[in-house]
Order: sequence, then structure tokens, then C-alpha cells
Amino acid sequence: HRTGIIEAVLAEGKTPEDVVKIAKAQSDASGRVLITRIGEKHRTALESYFKPDEIEWGIHSTTAVVHNGTPIKKTGGVVAVITAGTADIDVAEEAKMTASEMGCETIAIYDVGVAGLHRLVNEVAILKNKKPDSIVVAAGREGTLPTVVSGLVDVPVVGLPVSTGYGAGAKGEAALLAMLQSCSVVSVVNIDAGFVAGAFAARIANQVAEARNKASKK
Amino acid sequence: HRTGIIEAVLAEGKTPEDVVKIAKAQSDASGRVLITRIGEKHRTALESYFKPDEIEWGIHSTTAVVHNGTPIKKTGGVVAVITAGTADIDVAEEAKMTASEMGCETIAIYDVGVAGLHRLVNEVAILKNKKPDSIVVAAGREGTLPTVVSGLVDVPVVGLPVSTGYGAGAKGEAALLAMLQSCSVVSVVNIDAGFVAGAFAARIANQVAEARNKASKK
Amino acid sequence: HRTGIIEAVLAEGKTPEDVVKIAKAQSDASGRVLITRIGEKHRTALESYFKPDEIEWGIHSTTAVVHNGTPIKKTGGVVAVITAGTADIDVAEEAKMTASEMGCETIAIYDVGVAGLHRLVNEVAILKNKKPDSIVVAAGREGTLPTVVSGLVDVPVVGLPVSTGYGAGAKGEAALLAMLQSCSVVSVVNIDAGFVAGAFAARIANQVAEARNKASKK
Amino acid sequence: HRTGIIEAVLAEGKTPEDVVKIAKAQSDASGRVLITRIGEKHRTALESYFKPDEIEWGIHSTTAVVHNGTPIKKTGGVVAVITAGTADIDVAEEAKMTASEMGCETIAIYDVGVAGLHRLVNEVAILKNKKPDSIVVAAGREGTLPTVVSGLVDVPVVGLPVSTGYGAGAKGEAALLAMLQSCSVVSVVNIDAGFVAGAFAARIANQVAEARNKASKK
Amino acid sequence: HRTGIIEAVLAEGKTPEDVVKIAKAQSDASGRVLITRIGEKHRTALESYFKPDEIEWGIHSTTAVVHNGTPIKKTGGVVAVITAGTADIDVAEEAKMTASEMGCETIAIYDVGVAGLHRLVNEVAILKNKKPDSIVVAAGREGTLPTVVSGLVDVPVVGLPVSTGYGAGAKGEAALLAMLQSCSVVSVVNIDAGFVAGAFAARIANQVAEARNKASKK
Amino acid sequence: HRTGIIEAVLAEGKTPEDVVKIAKAQSDASGRVLITRIGEKHRTALESYFKPDEIEWGIHSTTAVVHNGTPIKKTGGVVAVITAGTADIDVAEEAKMTASEMGCETIAIYDVGVAGLHRLVNEVAILKNKKPDSIVVAAGREGTLPTVVSGLVDVPVVGLPVSTGYGAGAKGEAALLAMLQSCSVVSVVNIDAGFVAGAFAARIANQVAEARNKASKK
Amino acid sequence: HRTGIIEAVLAEGKTPEDVVKIAKAQSDASGRVLITRIGEKHRTALESYFKPDEIEWGIHSTTAVVHNGTPIKKTGGVVAVITAGTADIDVAEEAKMTASEMGCETIAIYDVGVAGLHRLVNEVAILKNKKPDSIVVAAGREGTLPTVVSGLVDVPVVGLPVSTGYGAGAKGEAALLAMLQSCSVVSVVNIDAGFVAGAFAARIANQVAEARNKASKK
Amino acid sequence: HRTGIIEAVLAEGKTPEDVVKIAKAQSDASGRVLITRIGEKHRTALESYFKPDEIEWGIHSTTAVVHNGTPIKKTGGVVAVITAGTADIDVAEEAKMTASEMGCETIAIYDVGVAGLHRLVNEVAILKNKKPDSIVVAAGREGTLPTVVSGLVDVPVVGLPVSTGYGAGAKGEAALLAMLQSCSVVSVVNIDAGFVAGAFAARIANQVAEARNKASKK
Ligand SMILES: Nc1ncnc2c1ncn2[C@@H]1O[C@H](COP(=O)(O)O)[C@@H](O)[C@H]1O
Ligand SMILES: Nc1ncnc2c1ncn2[C@@H]1O[C@H](COP(=O)(O)O)[C@@H](O)[C@H]1O
Ligand SMILES: Nc1ncnc2c1ncn2[C@@H]1O[C@H](COP(=O)(O)O)[C@@H](O)[C@H]1O
Ligand SMILES: Nc1ncnc2c1ncn2[C@@H]1O[C@H](COP(=O)(O)O)[C@@H](O)[C@H]1O
Ligand SMILES: [Mg+2]
Ligand SMILES: [Mg+2]
Ligand SMILES: [Mg+2]
Ligand SMILES: [Mg+2]
Ligand SMILES: [Mg+2]
Ligand SMILES: [Mg+2]
Ligand SMILES: [Mg+2]
Ligand SMILES: [Mg+2]
Repeated sequence: HRTGIIEAVLAEGKTPEDVVKIAKAQSDASGRVLITRIGEKHRTALESYFKPDEIEWGIHSTTAVVHNGTPIKKTGGVVAVITAGTADIDVAEEAKMTASEMGCETIAIYDVGVAGLHRLVNEVAILKNKKPDSIVVAAGREGTLPTVVSGLVDVPVVGLPVSTGYGAGAKGEAALLAMLQSCSVVSVVNIDAGFVAGAFAARIANQVAEARNKASKK
Repeated sequence: HRTGIIEAVLAEGKTPEDVVKIAKAQSDASGRVLITRIGEKHRTALESYFKPDEIEWGIHSTTAVVHNGTPIKKTGGVVAVITAGTADIDVAEEAKMTASEMGCETIAIYDVGVAGLHRLVNEVAILKNKKPDSIVVAAGREGTLPTVVSGLVDVPVVGLPVSTGYGAGAKGEAALLAMLQSCSVVSVVNIDAGFVAGAFAARIANQVAEARNKASKK
Repeated sequence: HRTGIIEAVLAEGKTPEDVVKIAKAQSDASGRVLITRIGEKHRTALESYFKPDEIEWGIHSTTAVVHNGTPIKKTGGVVAVITAGTADIDVAEEAKMTASEMGCETIAIYDVGVAGLHRLVNEVAILKNKKPDSIVVAAGREGTLPTVVSGLVDVPVVGLPVSTGYGAGAKGEAALLAMLQSCSVVSVVNIDAGFVAGAFAARIANQVAEARNKASKK
Repeated sequence: HRTGIIEAVLAEGKTPEDVVKIAKAQSDASGRVLITRIGEKHRTALESYFKPDEIEWGIHSTTAVVHNGTPIKKTGGVVAVITAGTADIDVAEEAKMTASEMGCETIAIYDVGVAGLHRLVNEVAILKNKKPDSIVVAAGREGTLPTVVSGLVDVPVVGLPVSTGYGAGAKGEAALLAMLQSCSVVSVVNIDAGFVAGAFAARIANQVAEARNKASKK
Repeated sequence: HRTGIIEAVLAEGKTPEDVVKIAKAQSDASGRVLITRIGEKHRTALESYFKPDEIEWGIHSTTAVVHNGTPIKKTGGVVAVITAGTADIDVAEEAKMTASEMGCETIAIYDVGVAGLHRLVNEVAILKNKKPDSIVVAAGREGTLPTVVSGLVDVPVVGLPVSTGYGAGAKGEAALLAMLQSCSVVSVVNIDAGFVAGAFAARIANQVAEARNKASKK
Repeated sequence: HRTGIIEAVLAEGKTPEDVVKIAKAQSDASGRVLITRIGEKHRTALESYFKPDEIEWGIHSTTAVVHNGTPIKKTGGVVAVITAGTADIDVAEEAKMTASEMGCETIAIYDVGVAGLHRLVNEVAILKNKKPDSIVVAAGREGTLPTVVSGLVDVPVVGLPVSTGYGAGAKGEAALLAMLQSCSVVSVVNIDAGFVAGAFAARIANQVAEARNKASKK
Repeated sequence: HRTGIIEAVLAEGKTPEDVVKIAKAQSDASGRVLITRIGEKHRTALESYFKPDEIEWGIHSTTAVVHNGTPIKKTGGVVAVITAGTADIDVAEEAKMTASEMGCETIAIYDVGVAGLHRLVNEVAILKNKKPDSIVVAAGREGTLPTVVSGLVDVPVVGLPVSTGYGAGAKGEAALLAMLQSCSVVSVVNIDAGFVAGAFAARIANQVAEARNKASKK
Repeated sequence: HRTGIIEAVLAEGKTPEDVVKIAKAQSDASGRVLITRIGEKHRTALESYFKPDEIEWGIHSTTAVVHNGTPIKKTGGVVAVITAGTADIDVAEEAKMTASEMGCETIAIYDVGVAGLHRLVNEVAILKNKKPDSIVVAAGREGTLPTVVSGLVDVPVVGLPVSTGYGAGAKGEAALLAMLQSCSVVSVVNIDAGFVAGAFAARIANQVAEARNKASKK
């Protein structure tokens, strides 16, 4: 695709049959296709139509890739995806698999929270050694994590608010607003928009990788 | 007062003359009176009517106490007030002076922010040695600080959102929502409600102090 | 736990199997575990897995404690939970059982409303004789009760808005805003956040009890 | 006027000259004219144009009646206006003077608040002896007063939210929502809509008075 | 009841068994009981428990009265309930049956809309001849009807917004705001609050009727 | 302009000098220029720079046309602009002058309101005889007028909400929502967007006129 | 109908039986009837009651026309309906069929998006050759399409926001606001209000066609 | 600074004297200091204290850099800043000067709008030849521009909503929501947050430049 962004199929709002049909058509045409926001019924339909080795599932199976054996074309970009708790994993997986399909190596750190400050600081120190080109930080409820992470690193941090929580500011609203008001420098995508966060982070990483590759070619 | 809360004069929305008149009447009657949300014109009127040793001003002079020499009746309670930056000081001072007028010793820590994580952790460690009975944490913009502080201590933390910031979630909205959604255990007062935060924290501290005092009296 | 707050399992959003598994693991590890926001299916799963004497249920069975016989370690703190009507009981039970698991004695007064002013005043007078260290007041719809109660007592009152009501200001919004705007001194937690209210009130009560205990030890 | 509602001049948004001109024209035509939401400059213009005995001012001078000596035509209706504090007086006066111009006797009780429950109960008991036909209850911040009053009387209570308060739910929003969610039976007008509240209460009182008058005529 | 308002059972949020149990208990105790916001399952349970002549159903069966033969005690008050279309009927019936249970004669006009201006004007003219003491006007979507009706009559008009419509301002929001902003004099209750509208209108009508009755007794 | 919409200068947010400069440049270039949302200072600057016969002012002087004598090129389209009260005139004038500059004949009816139903029906009947091609209906507060007018005519009615009113739904919000929820067929522009309403109505009228003109040319 | 707008049956919120009954009655009476917002169960009921040649279904079968063979009375008006993606088709079909029932020829262009700028520009150029009298542009998510289209044509463009998207601004909110703020001249209907958009566009087209027809008759 | 973000002075909310004092201190300490959101009075104070060659002003003088001759340390990163109209320039300048102070070369394109599609496409084509590493796109009102630009390029596009517009969705709200809902891949910063957008874009560009520089060093 001209702008470097992959196409993805948004399962939500489509019938299971349509999702299978589009997935088949696109994986035939391009070798691989990403499917996002997969519900119970889409999952069953995909599993009964495709062979196990034709699908790769994200944790919790709400994101998937259908492929005909065609491998991803690696770019050399490196994208990290961090999240505080288990409730953020679905959305984080969507971001991670999007970046992966766009050719990036991905690093997932799904178990650090602001509650355990010392561990968080350690994990970020380890992450910095792996030199990610960009970082997606998913957080629900009060959405603190991107602010803290961005204060510890020098690569671009993309805040990804997650629709958790109940009461005032629920469903990611507090998290989104907190990221927009962050004292650290972060940019933000919409609530649960793992696809956008992953694609944006991959665009950054692929830019950096391209420059790196030119270097190594000389 | 039967419920242990002091009366205070809310200057905002009153004429300077009325504020002076009420301040005079109440300080005559009870010895001391707290005045909150003082504007430019109230300040001038208070300064020209009362003698310098009859007024105590908070930092930035938006909160004040007028008194006729009557001292505060100390309770032995200890209230800490923490804030991240300079924009939160007015509201923090309102909380601190309210707790002080309710008989508490107050500890102000006005210079720690989530940006400087290491320093924050140090300051909180030092504070814990001073054994505050309750802590007010004022924070604007994304309102992270109470969440982080409450994860480091075992005394009650009252979140006090401050009306800073512009754009979406501005004027304390993001901070209020983030505190309501906090992963740590905090209770919250309204945006800029320094008086309520200070009075609530003092109620806690005075309860604890009363128990302590009974102990020492035996 | 270092900050004195117990861990609890939020059933909502988890599968019944996961809730049972986590409850088993945690009650094995720590002796007791609190489970909140329990739905129909979680309830069935818990009841069929654990023996009756391994579970204590809150009224309406939306909160529960699973334990292996390990008793609660009593602190001596006293927390009262007041509510106006029957619709507020689920959330109030969550607060009460949280405070109880944190070692407090709890007093539940679930049948006073602003409509019957005289009875309310009586109940509060009786409550004051029992000397609670802190009070949680749950209220839905227009959320008046914490304002009235806090005007009658001198201990800290935590407002707990409940998601009742329909139309404008429904689902606890009016109650939350009314508590934030209260003329009395109250602090507030999020709508339906019984766990936070109970844990916060217990933190206060445990502070007071600790001081009291030191006294009696001398 | 066919529907029994008087015309009133809304000063806000008009030039001082226009307000004077319209006031003159209408008081010439109908004998009396009510002017609401009067600002500093309108006040000066009205005072310099009309003679003192041609204007009646409400407390705080934000509502006024200009007349040419024509008396009000009394209906025998009785409207009470209750408010908790001083900040609600402007709006309460607007309601009271509207009811008065529509021919009702008015009873103003401007100093009762929910904070002082015992006094409030007394005041309402005294008011009931005066047998008002309808009651307007003005309240800002958390807007509790109409709920409490309506639980103590058997005449229609009209809630009038007042634009006081700061932070979340400020400027009458919490009060309006709390009145709409009230457990007592009250109907509501818009924030600061003293004219509507007064006219509505007068419509009720005038209906009742008409029935009473028919009785006494027999 | 001291304040003249009947008790009613709010079925929504209660189990069918509880609704039947409370209905039985209250109709035994007081002779009659009103039940509001009845769903499919409550309806079945009520129908299978009570005999047909023990229940009176509102149109669409979302409001009902269970009674043991005890008749309503008539007051002589007259309440009209007007609505524009069929979507408003459930809520209008709730208002009408509430007023009826409070002793009023009720007049229902359920088929006039602003679209047919000429017919509306006719209907209102006919209604005026029946001399209602108060009028409830239910309206959804843009909520125009109370404004138009109140401009044609001289009795109190209570606006009752109905939760119809989709898109911006849906579910009664536009209707509520339009009634609060009305150019005519109307007071308002919350969206779908038929019980409050009916009880408020009945309070007015019963006041007027009482005065009338005193007259006729002389 | 290719799309048939004229350019206009939005004075608000520009310095008086800039407005004069742009007005001069554009009227030199195109003969005529429309200026909208003119404040006090812009007005003074325009009056002192241009000669009286170079400016045409709308009522209240918040919209104006600067020209060098070049006449408008008439299209034959006919646009009516209706409004209920005086507060809506500024915005209505903006719509009317925009349509006029786009070549339409304009008909202004600025004094009909829903309160006086009979007069409104008359005015609309007279208007229909003048055969407008489209109608702009400006309305503030509860925004009823477009709904009523559209029910009486068969030409397109454009609702133009006006930022009047205070309290909930103020500043045109209730009016906008009511128009979006209207039972009649109307389309809507943003609050106070007189320029857009006028330009849109003119686009319609000019389409119709073009067809008419082709007819008469044959 | 006097105002030229057809009646339509809103299936949503009605029982399948009621929809069938009303459809039968109206198609008997007027020959044809439009049914909108048809759900699964309504569809089944309609299909089993009416013969295939008595119903015309829109794409996705959420809009339908039931008729007894009576043909549409053609006006000669031409309405185009454009949409960016597949998620907007249901709402677009509602607009298209409404215009069609009102006698217009309709042109549907359902596959152009802002993403493919070049194709969009081409499609609009082709459309202009077909000389539509008005254009409905349906768009969800960020609602850009009407702004872009209106900048390329000189006929009236009606923006129709569609309730797609998740997160902040979801369900058509961002699209509605973007259309109200559009730099191009567009008017707007409510979210998903395909019927209003279609009827409004048809009113325009029928006006133009009438003028055209008069021309051709001469 | 460890995270690569420069410090900046937010003038808004500070006294002119404080801004001068801080600017002096920081430019003495670090050589250069960026000042944002400068008002009339801050400007005057800065101009009278610093010499002309010690300040660099952004267009419209709401952003400035004070320096003591110390040059910027160039990184080789390239940041483009695009905006549609003149109203967006202040915020765009803030972004541009921030990126510049962080060492990037900046390209400003301030005159392209969606209205003129052809010119926009041309400008973006020219821009692509200059190979920016990241692009900030500022847009107010309906915020379309970032969506269109991101569909034409393959570098990361940061959407910067600007607080223009009136009515619903005004002050950048529609623009922010439209960018969050964008069909193209963009990330977003808060309304008017030029500093964050510039710093974020510079972080990206500096990452890419670092990789490039390593290449050229080999
Ligand atoms: N989870 C997602 N969130 C936002 N956009 C998505 C998502 N998944 C796919 N998309 C976008 O939507 C396009 C496909 O939409 P559709 O044709 O409805 O499947 C993809 O090419 C992506 O640009
Ligand atoms: N800054 C404040 N915020 C909220 N409440 C306040 C504040 N200052 C004073 N009050 C409360 O308002 C009461 C006085 O209000 P007033 O009579 O208007 O001066 C005090 O007794 C306090 O209960
Ligand atoms: N539809 C209703 N809307 C609002 N309040 C109601 C409604 N129905 C009953 N109520 C009130 O709620 C009280 C009973 O509530 P409950 O005890 O939950 O059944 C009644 O006495 C009424 O005051
Ligand atoms: N009152 C107005 N409301 C909305 N748009 C306007 C208004 N006046 C002018 N415009 C539009 O804004 C453009 C000029 O904006 P500017 O260059 O800032 O003067 C005009 O060509 C119109 O498209
Ligand atoms: Mg988080
Ligand atoms: Mg902060
Ligand atoms: Mg309550
Ligand atoms: Mg109050
Ligand atoms: Mg209606
Ligand atoms: Mg109006
Ligand atoms: Mg779109
Ligand atoms: Mg724009």
C-alpha cells in the first residue's frame, strides 16, 4: 500500500460469513490479512473454515492473522507494547500484531503497573537496552502509565487508552483525557484503537529502520 | 462548631466591603477567621483595613486568616499537603491553612512531580518518617500524583484536583476523573476544593490525635 | 500488603472459571479473598466449587469472601455503612465487607432515608453512641444523604454514589455531582466504588485504632 | 394577558437605554412592569430616569418593578419562597417579585439550610401555619433543600436551581440534576429561572385562590 | 401519607417475585397499590398471581394498580394528560394512573401533535371547557408540545419529557432541554418520570379541589 | 466562485485594521464584500475608513457589505428569513445579507413567535403567496419555530439555532438539539451560523431560479 | 400530503405484528408505504405476510416499500446519495428510498472515500454531468466527505452523519460535529436520519423540477 | 535533558515580571529558552527587557525564544508543519519553534486547505520531495486536513486540533474528535498543544536522523 499502512478487516459489525469471505479473498490476494475486534461468532466461523496453520491468534483471540504461508516482509523496525494489567491485553495485542504485520519486530511487556513503581522502573531500564524505535503504552482506568514511561525514555511514546473502568470517566474516558493532559510528551490515539496505535508506531519504526538500513548498506 | 469543622468566608462573589465586614465580625466573635478564594480587590481591602499582624497570608495571598491575637487550639493532628508544581500552590495553601485552623500541624511538600520519579520516591520516604495522620495530594492536568503517593503509604490520601490545563479535560476535569478512576485507594474532593480537602484531612487527623492523646493521658 | 489495602478479585469481565481459579489460588495463599461485582454465572460457579462454609456471601450475593478457615485479623477499627434504600444495598455490602476484611468491626444501617427526617436524626444519634471511626454513606438518585449525615457527626464521612435512577443525572451522575458540591465536608469515591469507599474508611479506622491500641497497651 | 402570565423585561443583553425606554412604555401602557436580570449599568440608567417612588427594587437590586402608581390587583393567592443561603437571594427575589406582580401575597424565608436541620424543620412548621398555596425552593451547589422541604409539606414545591458553586457540577448543574432525581415529588425550572418559578407558583396559587374566592362569595 | 403523595412500587430492577410480594403486602395493607415501569416478566408474574378483577392495567400494561376492591377516595381534583403520539403513551399512562390513585378525575388526550396545528388548537379549546386544575403534557423528540399548550391555557402545565428519538439529543434529552428553555411558563420533571408528573399535578389539583369543596360546603 | 458561494470576511478574531484592509482589498477586487460577526471596534474602524455610501449595514450593525458601487448580480432566487424575536435578529441579518449578496431577493419576517400561534399561521399564509424558494428559520431558546413552519409549507426549511438563553441547554444547545430531533422535515446549520444558513438557502433558490429562467427564456 | 412529505412507518420500537398491520393499512389506503429502521423480526414478519412483488427492499433490508402495485408519481427531481464505505449503506438506502418515494430519480454512489482522493474527484466529476438537483452525503467516523464534496459542486449538499466508530466521538458524534463545523457550505440532519435527509433533498429537487417542468410546458 | 525534550516556559497564567525573570534565568543557564502562549502584557515586558537580537519571535508573536547568542545544536531531523488557514498559525508556530529548538530543520506550509483540493495535492507532492521525517498538521473547525494528508504520505502525521470555530463542536472539539475518528492513521495531541505536537514530531525526526547520521559516519 502506497502509504505503508496495511489493510485490516474490522470484524465488528460484519456477519461471520462476511468476515470469512473477506479474509479468504484478501489472504489469497496479498498472502496475509489482519482481522481485528473479533467476537465469539466470528472466531468460531474462522476456526471452522481455515486450517490451524492458516491462522495466528493474538492472546484472548480477538485479533488474528489469516495467511496462506506467505511470510511477513521484515523491515528491521522495533516496536514495544507495554501495558499495566490483564484487562488491557486485547487492545495491546491488536497494536502488537498490526506492527508485526507491518514488518516490525515487536516486544510485549504486559505486566507492569504504576502500583509497583520499582518494578516498572526496572522493566523500562531493561527495555531501553533493547532499543525500541517507538513504544505503544496501553492503559485503562486513570491512564497513568504512558506519562510515567515517556518520562523515562527518549523514543516516541504513543498513548493507547483502553475502555476499562466503571462510574465517572469509565470506558477509557479518564484515560484518554489524562493522556491528552499528560505532563510528559505523548501523542494519543482513540480509546481501544490498537490498530491505529500499532500502525502509527510501525510507521515511525519503519522510518528509523530505513535510515538504519541505508547505513548498513554502505 | 458541633461537627468540628471551622467556618470560613468564601470571598469570591462577595464585595470587598462585605468580606472585610464579615471578617471583622467573625474574628471579633471567634478570635480567628479563615478567608478563601481572595481576589485582587478583596486583598487590597483586607490589607488596608486590618493591621499586618492581624492577617496571615497564604503563599500567593489567595487564602488568609484574620485574627485578633487568639491562637489556634492545637489538636496534635498532623496533615501533609503535597503538590507537583507551582500552579497547584494556591489550592494547596487553602487546604493547608484550613487544616491548620482546625488545630493540625501541617507539612507542605510543594515541589515533587511524577516527572522526577526518583525524587518523588525519596520525598515520600522522608514524609513517612514524619508520620502524618492524613495526606492531601493536589494535582492538575492529568492528576497522576495521588495515585502514585497512595501506592507508597498506608495513611488516607485525599485527592485534590486543580483547575489547570487547556483543551480537552482542561480545568481539572481530567485530574478529577483520573482520581475517581485511580487504581490506588484515594478519596476525592471537587476541583479546587482546598477547603473541603483540608477540613476532611483534619477531621481524620483530629480523630487519630484524640485517640493518641487519650493514650498519653493514661 | 505494604499499604494496608487488601487485594480483591473483580469478577465482572472475567469468566466464571477464571474467578473460581483465582479465588482458589488466593485463598490458598493468603487464607481469605474478597470477590466483588459477582454476576449470576460467577455465583453458580463459586457455589458449585466451594463448600458452603468456605464462602461468606453479602446480602444479594454480589460480593463474597472465599476462605480456608483463616480468621480475619481484627484491628479494633470501627466503620459504619449507611444507606437510604434497598437499591443501594449491593454497593454498601461491597464497602462493608471490604472494611471487614481489612480488620474493622462494621455497623450497617440500611434503612434510613432523607424522606423520613425524624427517623434519620434518631438513627444517627444512636450511631454516634457506637463511636464509629469513619462512616461510608451510600446514596443514589439525588445523593442527599451524605450531606445530611456529615452535618450531624464529627467523624469523616465518605460519600459513595450509587448507579440508580433514570433520565437526566441517572446512574449515579446526579449523586456524584451533588456529593462533590456538598455544603457539608465529605470526600467522595466513584459511582458504585464500594471497594474503594470501604478500603478508604478502613484505612482511617485502622489509623485511629492503632493510636487507641497504643494507649491501652501503656 | 390571556394566559394569566405577566410580561417582564429581560434586561440582560439589552442596552441601558433600551431597558429604560421599554420600561417607560410598558409602565405607561399597563401601569406596572417587571424588569429582571438587571446589571450595574441598567440600574444606574433606571435610577437616573425614574423617580424613587416609581421603582421598587428587590434585595441586591437585580430585579425591579417600574410603575406609575397603579397598584397590583390582588388575587388572594399565597406563594412562599425559601432559600438556604445568601447566594440564592437574587434569583429568589426574581421569583418572589414575579409572584407578587401576578397578584399573590408572598412569604420569603431566606435563611434556612440543610446544615441546620433542626432550625429548618421549625421554619417549615411555622410556614405551614401560614398556609401557602405553593412553595418555590431555591438552592445552589448540591440542591438538597427542595427534596427535604417537599417531604415535609403537602403543597406543590417548585425546585429552582441556582448557578452557584465551582468545579464539577458547578453553576447549578448538580442542583438541577439533583432536583430532577429527587426522591420527593418536586417539579423543576431551569437554572436561575426565577421568573418561571415565580410565575408557575403564582399560576397554582391563583387557581387555588379563585376556588377559595368562589367559596367565600357564596 | 402525610404529604399526600401515594407510595408506588417501582418494578424495574426488582425480581418478578419481589414485585408480586410487595404488591400483595401493600394492597392488603392499604387496599390499593400502584406499580410502575413493569416489564414483560413482571407482567406475567402479576397476571398469574392476581385475579383479573384485582388488577387494573394502563394501556400497554407498563403501569398497573393492584387492589383488594377498596375504591379510590375521590378528591374532586381534575388532571388532564396530553400527548402528541403513540410513543409517549406508556409514560402518560403512568402519570394519569398516579393522579387517579391520588383521587383525581383524569382526562386523557393522546392524539394531538404540533404537526396538526389546527386540530391541536381545537382539542385544547375543548379541554378548557372541561376545566382541568392542572395539565401534564408528555412529549418526546423535540418536546414542543408543552410550550404550545401552556401558551393557550391559564392553568399550570407540567412538562414530561419522554425518552424517544435517536441521534443527538435522543432519549428525551432534547425534549428536556427544550422544556427547560421554553418561552412559555412550564415546570418540568425528569425524562420518563410519569409518576412524579402525575403526583405533582395531583397535588395541585387536590389543593384547588379542597378550596372548591370548602366553598360548596358552605 | 466555482461553487457559487461568495467569500466573506469573518471579523471576529481579526484586528480592526486587518478587517478594514481585507475589506478594501476584496471590494476593490470583486466590487463587493460581505463582513460578518462585526464587533464594536471593527464597526468604528469600518465607519471611519469607508464613506457612508460604500457600506450597507444590517440591523444592529453586526453584518455589513462594503462595495465600490458594483451592484449585486440578481439571480431571481427568493429566500425568506423568519425569526421569533428580537434576540435572533443579528444572526438572521447575517443569513439574509448572505443570500442577498448571492443574488437572491430576500423577505424578512422578524416578529412572529410560537406564543402567538394565530398570528404565526397568518404570517406564514401571507409568505406562501410570495412564493419563496427556500426559508431560513432562526430560533433560540427551545427552537420550536422551524418545526412549526416546516409543517405549514412545502419548500425547504433550514433551521438556524441562535445562541440565546441561560441555564441548561443555553446558548443555542437546546435549539440545535430540538431542530435535529424535529418531527417536521428540516435541515440544520450550526448555532449562530447565519452565513451558512443564508448561503445554503441561496444555493437552493439559485438552483430553482436557474430552472425558472430557462423556462422564461424559451 | 399538504407539505409534500410522505408518511413513513418507523419499525423500530413497534412489534412485528403492528408493523405489518400498519403497512397493510397504509398501502391499501395510499398505494405505497415506506418502512424504515427494520429489524430482524420485522423483516421476517413482513416477508411472510406480503408477497415478494408487494415489497421492494433496500440493500441490507433495513428499509422497504410495501405497495399494491400503485406506481410512484415521478416529479422529475434528481437526488444523488453518496457514501464513503459499506458501513454507511443502510442509512444511505433510507435516504435514497425516501427521495424515490417522493417522486425523484435517485443516483447512488456508494464506494468513494476520502482515502482515495483521485477516485473521489473523478466520481464527483461524473456525477456533475448527471446534473443532480441536490446531494445527500452520508459519512461516519470523522465525517469528512460532505465537506470535500460540497467544495466541488454548486448544488445543495445535505450532510448525513452515520453512527459508526468506537471510542471518543463514536456513533456519529464526531461526524455530526465535523459537519456542523464544516468549512464548506452544508446543512445537516441528525445522526442516522436518512429519512429526513432524503425528504429534505427531495423537497429541494421537487422545487427545481417544478420550475423546470413549467419551462418545458411553455 | 535526559528524555531529549526541551524545557519551555508557559507564559499564560504567569505575571509578565515572572516570565521575564524565568526567561532570563533559563537563557543564562542553558543559552536558549522557549516561551509559549505569550499574551499582550508578557510581550511588552519581554520586548522592554531583552534586546532585539536576544529574542526570536514566531509569527503573531505568541511564541518566542530568548537566547544569549548560543546557537541551536542541529540534529539533522526534518519536521514539516502544515496548516489550512490563518487562524491556525499561532499554534502551528508553537509546534514549529519547539521542533526547531530541539534541533530540527522545519518546513512550514501555512496556506493549504481542503477547500482547494488540487492545490493541496500539489503542495503535498512538493513536500514529499523535501523528505520530512514527520509532519504536524494543525486544523481547526472540522479538522479534516490531517486525515487527507496522512492518506497521501508514508511518514508519521501528528494531528494538532486548533481551538477555532463557534457553536456545537467549537473551540477545537470537533477537530479533536474528527482526528481521533480519522480513517487515516494519525496520532493526536490535545487542542492547541503546539508544544507537545512539535516535541513529539521532533522526537521522531531526531530518532530517524540519528540512524541516518550513523549511516553517514560509516
Ligand atoms: N480495529 C480497527 N480500528 C480502526 N480502524 C480499523 C480497525 N481495523 C481495521 N480498521 C481500518 O478499517 C479498514 C477496513 O474497514 P472495513 O472495510 O470496514 O473492514 C482497514 O483498512 C483499516 O484502515
Ligand atoms: N473555598 C471554599 N470552598 C467551599 N466551601 C467553602 C469555601 N470557603 C468557605 N466555604 C464554606 O462556605 C461557608 C461560608 O459561605 P459564605 O457564608 O458564603 O461565606 C463556610 O462556612 C464553608 O462551609
Ligand atoms: N416510576 C417511578 N419514578 C420515580 N419514582 C418512583 C416511580 N415509581 C415509584 N417511585 C417512587 O419510589 C418509591 C418506591 O420505591 P421502591 O421502594 O424502590 O419501590 C415510591 O414510593 C415512589 O416514591
Ligand atoms: N460568520 C461566518 N460563519 C462561518 N463561516 C464564515 C462566516 N463568515 C465568513 N465565513 C467563512 O470563512 C471564510 C473567510 O474566513 P477568513 O479568511 O478567516 O475571513 C469565508 O469565505 C467563509 O467561507
Ligand atoms: Mg492505568
Ligand atoms: Mg499532575
Ligand atoms: Mg439519595
Ligand atoms: Mg443547597
Ligand atoms: Mg414532541
Ligand atoms: Mg424559539
Ligand atoms: Mg467518513
Ligand atoms: Mg480544518
